[in-house]
Amino acid sequence: MTVGIYGLGRFGAFWGDQLSRFFTVKGYSRSEKRFCPKTIERVTEDEIFNCDVIIICVAISAMENFLRNIKDKVKPGTLIMDTCSVKVYPVNLMLEILPEYVDILGTHPMFGPDSGKNGVAGLPIVVSKARLSDSLYKKWIEAFNNMNLSVIEMSPDEHDKEAAYTQGITHFIGRTLSDMNLKSSTISTTGYISLLEIIKQTCNDEYQLFLDLQKYNSYTSIMRNDLKNSLHKVLKVIEAKITEGDNA
Amino acid sequence: MTVGIYGLGRFGAFWGDQLSRFFTVKGYSRSEKRFCPKTIERVTEDEIFNCDVIIICVAISAMENFLRNIKDKVKPGTLIMDTCSVKVYPVNLMLEILPEYVDILGTHPMFGPDSGKNGVAGLPIVVSKARLSDSLYKKWIEAFNNMNLSVIEMSPDEHDKEAAYTQGITHFIGRTLSDMNLKSSTISTTGYISLLEIIKQTCNDEYQLFLDLQKYNSYTSIMRNDLKNSLHKVLKVIEAKITEGDNA
Repeated sequence: MTVGIYGLGRFGAFWGDQLSRFFTVKGYSRSEKRFCPKTIERVTEDEIFNCDVIIICVAISAMENFLRNIKDKVKPGTLIMDTCSVKVYPVNLMLEILPEYVDILGTHPMFGPDSGKNGVAGLPIVVSKARLSDSLYKKWIEAFNNMNLSVIEMSPDEHDKEAAYTQGITHFIGRTLSDMNLKSSTISTTGYISLLEIIKQTCNDEYQLFLDLQKYNSYTSIMRNDLKNSLHKVLKVIEAKITEGDNA
Repeated sequence: MTVGIYGLGRFGAFWGDQLSRFFTVKGYSRSEKRFCPKTIERVTEDEIFNCDVIIICVAISAMENFLRNIKDKVKPGTLIMDTCSVKVYPVNLMLEILPEYVDILGTHPMFGPDSGKNGVAGLPIVVSKARLSDSLYKKWIEAFNNMNLSVIEMSPDEHDKEAAYTQGITHFIGRTLSDMNLKSSTISTTGYISLLEIIKQTCNDEYQLFLDLQKYNSYTSIMRNDLKNSLHKVLKVIEAKITEGDNA
């Protein structure tokens, strides 16, 4: 079985390389400048459509145009998987735009070149059954299990609700602290060192991914509101404490 | 040489236990309920004042009253060290309140029972020379070096400026996220797991310490303002991104 990676960005190249230990992996990127690991055979766009499985590794915000561009090129019986960090939006788009004769599986590999730099064993991948036979679905659950991934079956909605308060908030905190230009210090506590690592890790991803995570997961707006409220609540407690001292 | 720990709270008990590997350590707490490690000899308040060194382990906000209470009980030639997480405020108080005939050293051991649970080797301790001879000062630098601590000499002001943006922000983020009731998840990314650990670690400390850190380090108000500004800046970028989509 051949797997085609469409999009050799930072994540696509990484994920294709991981998959190459189990499958024949081909890769295509519009940009010839993109780095392609040796384990992935770089091919033309046409050749990607000959693969049994096509794994889409493009930005969330590019998904709609991308799907409209490929919908007449995909061949019957191909399995299309997305890898977006949100699920409701791309799964709905795939169901709406892709022809009936292709199979569709939503996936969110919850790792990347940073968190997976020592291997992906034990790391989570969310799968959302979209439009494919039970047997093909089970086959892929098994394949991801064989890769030692922690496979989590979730509906796109369940995923987005949970991801807003896990991945979404982590990226939001990382980007906010990064804006503050925090630096390492001789008096770093272990907690502060962890904070700097979160900044580094979240900001290694493209800014586009951060914005897309916040924009295309509708639950993140509730999360951002919650965070804003908690921040102001804690600020208020501190102000009260400081004022209390003034009166003492 | 005997070291007296005044205050057997969470930190006092931990720090006394660490010091007991190198010194004879006695401990006193107003509350008899406080846990006292076997390595620390529990004594009366009077006996603490017979120690060569008294290490103050009380809340920052309790320092002023505490110092006024002990100032007539301390004996000439005693070395008094505080361990507060801020330095300008307690060092100024010690210089102002304690009699001329006692020596004063400001310290901030930048670890606790959580971050030091696997030992304190390599962890930082800030020392601020307040009022003591060069030879006594050097002796304590050496003693902390012998404990394998990373000794950092800083003025109280330098310490507070730097701590606001390291320890201060970490506690602030920890308390804010804790208020959001974040939970562990099957789809935790490694960054999110680090975030949960920061919450756990900062919230294991008493709420009093958090408020004191924010109140008695005057640089934290600038830090909180910076954080608020960065948060609103990032929120604005996201809003703009979302609106951009509406017009597309």
